[in-house]
Amino acid sequence: MKKSLSLFVLPAVLAAAALPAQADVPLANRAITQAEVLAAQNGWCKALLDIGAANASGGQAAAKALAEKVIDTAYGYQMGPVLFKPTLTVAPQTFRTTKAGALAYFVGGDAAFPKDDGFALKGWTRCEVSNSAIFIAGDSASTQGNVSFTGKDGKVTTVDKTWSYVKDDAGRLRIVVHHSSLPYAPR
Amino acid sequence: MKKSLSLFVLPAVLAAAALPAQADVPLANRAITQAEVLAAQNGWCKALLDIGAANASGGQAAAKALAEKVIDTAYGYQMGPVLFKPTLTVAPQTFRTTKAGALAYFVGGDAAFPKDDGFALKGWTRCEVSNSAIFIAGDSASTQGNVSFTGKDGKVTTVDKTWSYVKDDAGRLRIVVHHSSLPYAPR
Amino acid sequence: MKKSLSLFVLPAVLAAAALPAQADVPLANRAITQAEVLAAQNGWCKALLDIGAANASGGQAAAKALAEKVIDTAYGYQMGPVLFKPTLTVAPQTFRTTKAGALAYFVGGDAAFPKDDGFALKGWTRCEVSNSAIFIAGDSASTQGNVSFTGKDGKVTTVDKTWSYVKDDAGRLRIVVHHSSLPYAPR
Amino acid sequence: MKKSLSLFVLPAVLAAAALPAQADVPLANRAITQAEVLAAQNGWCKALLDIGAANASGGQAAAKALAEKVIDTAYGYQMGPVLFKPTLTVAPQTFRTTKAGALAYFVGGDAAFPKDDGFALKGWTRCEVSNSAIFIAGDSASTQGNVSFTGKDGKVTTVDKTWSYVKDDAGRLRIVVHHSSLPYAPR
Repeated sequence: MKKSLSLFVLPAVLAAAALPAQADVPLANRAITQAEVLAAQNGWCKALLDIGAANASGGQAAAKALAEKVIDTAYGYQMGPVLFKPTLTVAPQTFRTTKAGALAYFVGGDAAFPKDDGFALKGWTRCEVSNSAIFIAGDSASTQGNVSFTGKDGKVTTVDKTWSYVKDDAGRLRIVVHHSSLPYAPR
Repeated sequence: MKKSLSLFVLPAVLAAAALPAQADVPLANRAITQAEVLAAQNGWCKALLDIGAANASGGQAAAKALAEKVIDTAYGYQMGPVLFKPTLTVAPQTFRTTKAGALAYFVGGDAAFPKDDGFALKGWTRCEVSNSAIFIAGDSASTQGNVSFTGKDGKVTTVDKTWSYVKDDAGRLRIVVHHSSLPYAPR
Repeated sequence: MKKSLSLFVLPAVLAAAALPAQADVPLANRAITQAEVLAAQNGWCKALLDIGAANASGGQAAAKALAEKVIDTAYGYQMGPVLFKPTLTVAPQTFRTTKAGALAYFVGGDAAFPKDDGFALKGWTRCEVSNSAIFIAGDSASTQGNVSFTGKDGKVTTVDKTWSYVKDDAGRLRIVVHHSSLPYAPR
Repeated sequence: MKKSLSLFVLPAVLAAAALPAQADVPLANRAITQAEVLAAQNGWCKALLDIGAANASGGQAAAKALAEKVIDTAYGYQMGPVLFKPTLTVAPQTFRTTKAGALAYFVGGDAAFPKDDGFALKGWTRCEVSNSAIFIAGDSASTQGNVSFTGKDGKVTTVDKTWSYVKDDAGRLRIVVHHSSLPYAPR
């Protein structure tokens, strides 16, 4: 019995040494990592502040040009509708499934979205993400938590925010779901 | 030239008839369909009303027992944290990443969540989903739109809602992201 | 008891009627369907015959031009390495992880792949797929079964074949895994 | 101009410091990593040798019991058909879409698969994987390359092998595609 046990163990020992280190094998990787998700969130915050800075230095036209570029690279509108519920929108234009609706929300100035005055133009000086939890499904990933915006006067506005990302063919994360809301205020 | 053209076309014609109809080939399918998404949304509404009905007929204990079963089958808490921001929660308990937090939100009665009085116990008589858009990533799918709840007095409360689902090993959709918020009310 | 039962049932009945038919909601769908898989297989067969026909009518240069176009649209080489083990390749060039290696296999004429004489140039008149089973993971899908090629002389060559596809940003299936082998012949 | 430039730069600098380190945020991760893939391959080799060792020490019944356990934990038969083309099978039983077919291949002794004499019972002393390339789609991953088996007499048999894995609800990789073939031997 002792003998057969050692026979049983031996091959496993051999196998343990069997697989070569193959760190350099050609690899295509469409999975999303936590690090990519955190970088995408940070990038969103940075882009929001950059659009505000473009407005301060170059006016609304400069802000709009930058916002359009940001939306084109960070959101998934070229794949189809994006599920975007911004913080401050109201019915019947609550949901911004098109790029035009997203652009109007960030920089205003679109007669088709008359209630939008440009969220990115409010002079934010700081944008900070605090995640409650992250779910990585594989080729999509979602986050939920708070994002805090600091205004010129130092006042901080905190929202509840959900983002979902997919990775495009070029390997870049794109926002395909974005739900933002002010905290519930019991009356 | 005419001859070579017909040579070029001929094989394509043959190929068009080449593939047999194989509707009955053994198939494992983990992709999510639009029909499955709509059924899951409908199931959530039905479950909410059922929990309220259990409360009306059997009291909070009956409602809690049913709610626990609903959460176990419709949410993904057994996979890890769920990204759940219910409509009426407040800091520091805004996000309900655990099953206990979800259960308390739906039926209350948990000293650990003192502000929860049970959203499913409010006597809703109707629950209706109206999607703005749907994004199916493959093995995950997201929806965004309105859900309207009709109270006993006939008053309708409409919320903005985002859900994301994954399919479990048994082929059942499970909610892994849920963000619900009252509409923004400009002051 | 009868009363509470009817109370319990009533909301469910209401809920059953709650969800509007929303067949026209904006939808982005990156999931792969069985129909798309069958179409991609059929397309591969058709392309193989078309390359052979291009060779018959326009010579190797015409075949190569078409094959390059086929590889660019039907395989995933622009995403990274493709896991391609063609039927007739031998070590040390068994695996064709690059586009150049795939092109050489299909149409030959590449000094870097001296043993390739062009699988698509063999005068196939018919190509037929018979699946053993299909696995759809969500945004990827795999098939396994036989593919039968009929030669000019009417002789049929049958191979064992596995394909895996992903859907690109444009919604097109691309082959990222392809393993083809002659049946095992016991000696 | 200098001033507006510094205004433009300032917020970005603030944002760079905005995101807290959140390595400990609750995380559900269904994506597949390269390390998990390599471990699954290594586990397959180890299991093959272990089944052989069980046969040597306990006979075919012991080998079969272990093989059944291995198939239950390493393959995806409980999800549906597995796309399994073993190295040495022949028509009409080339493809082993069921667990019974896989078990017969590994340990033989099943009258329903009369040509199977048990691949795992051949006394392999070593099993080594050498990947050509890896493709991670997100929640599925594929490998392709060589696997070399060393016999009792020291002779090495090398096969071309493709594996695809999905991650189950418990976070374990399961083989859903397996295509193995002897190298093509030009005549």
